[in-house]
Amino acid sequence: MPESVTFPEIDGERLRALMDGISAFGDTGDGGVHRPAGTTEHGEARDWLRQRFAEHGMRVAIDGIGNLFGILEWAGPDAPLILTGSHLDSQPNGGRFDGAYGVMASLEAITALKAHFAATGEKPRCNFAIVDWMNEEGARYQPSLLGSSVFAGLLDLDYALSRKDGAGKSVREELARTGYLGSDAPPKPATYVEMHVECGGVLEKTGKQIAPFERYWGALKVRIGMTGKQTHTGPTPMEDRHDALLGAAYVITGIRDLGPRAADTLYTSVGRIEVVPNSPNIVPGEAVLFAELRSPEMSVLEWAEAELAKVLDDAAARAGVAVKIQNIDRRPAGRFSESLCRLAEQSAESLGLSRMRIDTIGGHDGIPMLQVCPSVVVAVPSIGGICHNPIEFTPHEDLVNGTQVLVRMLWQLDRAGGDPGRL
Amino acid sequence: MPESVTFPEIDGERLRALMDGISAFGDTGDGGVHRPAGTTEHGEARDWLRQRFAEHGMRVAIDGIGNLFGILEWAGPDAPLILTGSHLDSQPNGGRFDGAYGVMASLEAITALKAHFAATGEKPRCNFAIVDWMNEEGARYQPSLLGSSVFAGLLDLDYALSRKDGAGKSVREELARTGYLGSDAPPKPATYVEMHVECGGVLEKTGKQIAPFERYWGALKVRIGMTGKQTHTGPTPMEDRHDALLGAAYVITGIRDLGPRAADTLYTSVGRIEVVPNSPNIVPGEAVLFAELRSPEMSVLEWAEAELAKVLDDAAARAGVAVKIQNIDRRPAGRFSESLCRLAEQSAESLGLSRMRIDTIGGHDGIPMLQVCPSVVVAVPSIGGICHNPIEFTPHEDLVNGTQVLVRMLWQLDRAGGDPGRL
Repeated sequence: MPESVTFPEIDGERLRALMDGISAFGDTGDGGVHRPAGTTEHGEARDWLRQRFAEHGMRVAIDGIGNLFGILEWAGPDAPLILTGSHLDSQPNGGRFDGAYGVMASLEAITALKAHFAATGEKPRCNFAIVDWMNEEGARYQPSLLGSSVFAGLLDLDYALSRKDGAGKSVREELARTGYLGSDAPPKPATYVEMHVECGGVLEKTGKQIAPFERYWGALKVRIGMTGKQTHTGPTPMEDRHDALLGAAYVITGIRDLGPRAADTLYTSVGRIEVVPNSPNIVPGEAVLFAELRSPEMSVLEWAEAELAKVLDDAAARAGVAVKIQNIDRRPAGRFSESLCRLAEQSAESLGLSRMRIDTIGGHDGIPMLQVCPSVVVAVPSIGGICHNPIEFTPHEDLVNGTQVLVRMLWQLDRAGGDPGRL
Repeated sequence: MPESVTFPEIDGERLRALMDGISAFGDTGDGGVHRPAGTTEHGEARDWLRQRFAEHGMRVAIDGIGNLFGILEWAGPDAPLILTGSHLDSQPNGGRFDGAYGVMASLEAITALKAHFAATGEKPRCNFAIVDWMNEEGARYQPSLLGSSVFAGLLDLDYALSRKDGAGKSVREELARTGYLGSDAPPKPATYVEMHVECGGVLEKTGKQIAPFERYWGALKVRIGMTGKQTHTGPTPMEDRHDALLGAAYVITGIRDLGPRAADTLYTSVGRIEVVPNSPNIVPGEAVLFAELRSPEMSVLEWAEAELAKVLDDAAARAGVAVKIQNIDRRPAGRFSESLCRLAEQSAESLGLSRMRIDTIGGHDGIPMLQVCPSVVVAVPSIGGICHNPIEFTPHEDLVNGTQVLVRMLWQLDRAGGDPGRL
């Protein structure tokens, strides 16, 4: 970037007012918000966002799964569209930054861009849109990333609308009730940029200020059932036992041993176990484990899946039980747009901000968006790496830094006609 | 035993009538009985037994914990007393032989002894008593062996009476309701012999007919608590995890490895596990295991307990968790009376019955009785080694064989003045 360039500038106090405004919806009084997808609080927050869109002269569109868009068609109907945003839904009693920050940063960045174009006389080359994705969290409705996955063609619309919460209320019902069961055609983005607070703690630990996500981790989530023979612990000779819990223990320790043997990072876990009859003096006849394998590299996940099969065979043989594995979820690992990662780094550097690339293990709407266009998620620090908790906190300065990075990225993308490959 | 001896002889058809009579109480219609301690069905079965005692001219005594005795004081108030019997309470939907057989065999043996003394003109040297112990099974009230443990001074009477079932009804209440909250002085036995069906399956497998229990296994039952740190399975680096379920898995496999290393037989088991929060995507913060170690030799149990401490230390270190162990029950291993074992073997031989010595892993009233006097439990086969089940079954011929062995033992003990050491 040449030194003589005049960059658009955001206004920190305006951003602060936006964060305060959105945080009033579902305010839990302890710094957090309770705004699960489709609730009245979520609907009211979205109504507030629509008012902001209207103030900016943005056209509102609500698609079939309730994604909410504010569209600024200032470069003509055929111009490429640059999409930015995040999500306003929260975890139950969640934090005020997770998701909401990305939407507020987008609002502020668009405001700054408008001011910049007005002040400099530059003409925008692209249209812009801000998105509030429906049900990113997956707390009330599973799966998570519901709205962006439907948008990206990864999830069937009718299936998504038919998802029910614990009380039996469907996505369709709750969208209709809150006024967000739409039928508008969504915009077709040329590229997507999302700001988000980091939920890992790497930025805080390393003292860095800005981090584009370079890789997103894949995950294999499985259910492992062990069938032995239910007998009394007293008289049954050891050689006649078929202990499903013992088999489960061999699986748990075997899975733990995979990580150190993997060629790249591999996280493993067994978080849930169910045992039948689970009585102190009965050899367990049945055990079920829920295990997860996570890695940033598909090759490692594929290796781990093959090794897991060996672990299960070994455990079955040692405990004398039968083993059955069932896949629950398979999320591929992958990479965000390299051009957009570099753009985030350059934007941070031009602002004198320290930066690094990091991975994301959790899901973000930017991941399904990779099916549609070049995308990236850029993180700012979150104290202690804490998310999904009312004590989640990011200092205002970091929110400002991130929004400055965002507006520079959006402006550069506009200059490149919405094509990060041309940067 | 000299060949010329005239032995008392039991009557198989009388025994069959007794078994049919007692099996009517709590009859479940599928071959089994439902007669848990203190229930109405149990009380009615005991009333029936009292009528049999009365028919035999036996004095009835009910002690403070509801043990029911029929006492035949035919050798004078100062003569030694030989005690025999078992228990009429059953498991919920249990079998008709477990416990009841020992009481019916005792009734028939006393009948045969009376006939023998009347026919031969021999004078009895000892008094005899039949006992029906309260709450042997431990199904409705814990601990098991309640009546015999109070009798033997191993359990406090008030503690035993205050035990409650799942519905909150105490032993005291239910004994009073069924008419078995007594205050009679129990008899003071010189020796104790109990017949029982075998619940292990060794006799059936080996084709033997009679088996005195030589050893009773000891048990150490423990609760093992593991405390780790509850975190998300996604972002938490492996080196920062303190996984309580992983620690539990190391304990389970470590306990399993103890058996093959022990100097004598050691059975191990972990039958129950509780995990908090037990969610697929959360590293478990808490886990609790219920483990059992069982062996016929105290030295092995003591070794195993020391090794278990090393297993826990190792598991704690490997999983990065804290471990706490709590003893729930400690039952010493030991041996039944060697003289009575030999007497059972000789009696079987004199009848042309095949015999062997076996161990008992489960509890029997004969174990607390070792605190009081020389005691033994003698087993007859049970098909498939099945107990605590309506399909529990012993062919009538085996019931007859066992009762013939019992009456010869009782008669020999009478001849020895109630002192097995003089045989």
